[in-house]
Amino acid sequence: MKIAAINRELETALQHKIDQKTKPPGALGKLEHVALQIGLIQQSLEPVLQNPQLLLFAGDHGLVQAGVSPYPQEVTQQMVMNFVAGGAAINVFCRQHNIAIDVVDAGVNGDLSGLDIVHAKVAQGTANCLEGPAMTAEQFEQACKAARQLVVEKHSAGCNVIGFGEMGIGNTSSAALVFSVLSGMAVEDCVGRGTGLDDAGLAQKKAVLRQVINRHQGVEKTAPSVLQAFGGFELVMIYAAALQAAELNMIVLVDGFIATAAIAAAIHEAPALQDYCLFSHLSDEHAHKMMLDYLGVEPLLQLNMRLGEGSGVAITYPLIESAIAFLNEMASFESAGVSDKE
Amino acid sequence: MKIAAINRELETALQHKIDQKTKPPGALGKLEHVALQIGLIQQSLEPVLQNPQLLLFAGDHGLVQAGVSPYPQEVTQQMVMNFVAGGAAINVFCRQHNIAIDVVDAGVNGDLSGLDIVHAKVAQGTANCLEGPAMTAEQFEQACKAARQLVVEKHSAGCNVIGFGEMGIGNTSSAALVFSVLSGMAVEDCVGRGTGLDDAGLAQKKAVLRQVINRHQGVEKTAPSVLQAFGGFELVMIYAAALQAAELNMIVLVDGFIATAAIAAAIHEAPALQDYCLFSHLSDEHAHKMMLDYLGVEPLLQLNMRLGEGSGVAITYPLIESAIAFLNEMASFESAGVSDKE
Repeated sequence: MKIAAINRELETALQHKIDQKTKPPGALGKLEHVALQIGLIQQSLEPVLQNPQLLLFAGDHGLVQAGVSPYPQEVTQQMVMNFVAGGAAINVFCRQHNIAIDVVDAGVNGDLSGLDIVHAKVAQGTANCLEGPAMTAEQFEQACKAARQLVVEKHSAGCNVIGFGEMGIGNTSSAALVFSVLSGMAVEDCVGRGTGLDDAGLAQKKAVLRQVINRHQGVEKTAPSVLQAFGGFELVMIYAAALQAAELNMIVLVDGFIATAAIAAAIHEAPALQDYCLFSHLSDEHAHKMMLDYLGVEPLLQLNMRLGEGSGVAITYPLIESAIAFLNEMASFESAGVSDKE
Repeated sequence: MKIAAINRELETALQHKIDQKTKPPGALGKLEHVALQIGLIQQSLEPVLQNPQLLLFAGDHGLVQAGVSPYPQEVTQQMVMNFVAGGAAINVFCRQHNIAIDVVDAGVNGDLSGLDIVHAKVAQGTANCLEGPAMTAEQFEQACKAARQLVVEKHSAGCNVIGFGEMGIGNTSSAALVFSVLSGMAVEDCVGRGTGLDDAGLAQKKAVLRQVINRHQGVEKTAPSVLQAFGGFELVMIYAAALQAAELNMIVLVDGFIATAAIAAAIHEAPALQDYCLFSHLSDEHAHKMMLDYLGVEPLLQLNMRLGEGSGVAITYPLIESAIAFLNEMASFESAGVSDKE
């Protein structure tokens, strides 16, 4: 299937509706852009948001053996248990905004079989990409298929707006590697402190990622190739899920550094995807600004957050609801009997 | 009564609680600052938001005779009717977030007696400040008293978080004049396009405001004096309401350019007020950034909005709820059994 480029025929009518609302033209700023974009995605002057959903993909990374994170790998599975218990930030924010949340074991290094989550484990973490590809072509396909199937299920159940979160100790490294190779930017510029490296840790992370890049000099500059080379399973699932969502004409909500790297890879593969994406926030992780500039987009929020999990998507969601609400509920100059500019 | 400077004794305990949540330290960015501030205002490790309220003050301006707005003065009362009918942006956003809204006739030039609003009309608009003071000392006191009484009533009914909106054709001019004199910045730098002046209109507005400043050379640089000189009644009511709210230990939510000018005047009068203020958004109105820099504050949102009405406060409210929710609902490393940094 192919992602349809958005039909912009309705743009004039949508803009006219926005401009007839009882406010000076443009006075709702970025909310007006969001309303226009969603109207175009849904080809409707009265767009609706239905069954908002967050898919939270968790996976582990063989590369953590090289010391790229200050947290131990066990935190990935401990956090999955925290998600299931409802105690993480993403649980709090999804509850607040009535966003359904499904936790997906994409490839956590541990036995999660007893948990009430989506079991799609490809392997017990990726292989160490310092030594070879993070995953095989078969594993890549398996991850894509599982993610696509999940999105299809949510769509069938009535969801038309979906966001993707991630949890995986070490995954800022995968995100930096994937983005570096696809964008052509030096990997050192794509590296940040992740969950909180100090200066020495950051220097080591840069050195390790340079080694990884050198190890994979010949990697083809396509999304599937770099994702296989650098992982992780959660990035692959976000990549595939975003493509599937846009194929189904859903609104794709983009989170921070890691989710953006995966979705930038998907946009590299299928540029029309970008029309379906709403970029929620600018993360405090160093290279996220560079990524968003590379895509030529401005996110809605900038709150110096750097938590992942889809937390940026969740806290941005009420603004997206506001955009739809003003478009559908505000009076027009005519209906309210308000005089327009002289 | 006096505004109590915030007691910071609880800061260490609050910061500890924030840092023990299952997230890297600081990973929730500005939400952590909001949680800390509200915890300090309420002197509680478990702060709560109760009965959020927006007071929407409307007033007219004698200065509009000089041609400082592209909209006719009748729009002020037309918009009041729109607020009552529930068709304005602020109605939509307050409905979305369960914020109660009271529309207050502070001094609209028109007969609003039949409407279900708060009737506190001081006069049929201010006098033209090109010719003399916008209001008398008695009118200033009357406006302050009405606003304070309203805040006391809301507080008695259980409200502990309050924001102020405004509607008044011409009121970006009053805001620019008030801020210019209190801050010492040139009025030309404080002028913006308001609801949408073109270049010629902007030049005229600057020329008119320069004339007003020249007319009032001797004005005392105190908040009451400049508010009396330049108006409007809605700015005076926001000024007094903010002071009253802080005296009652309420959280004060600050909207855009006009509300910030009124509250900056209140802070000029009582600097401790600032500890009770949360600045919601950076307006697209030219000089708002300058005002916020002058106060040394960073707002939460920057969405290029410039609508007034309290719309910035309303769309920011869910973020404030998110800050309180993470503080009260997230698990700690210990309670969730998650490993902290190595």
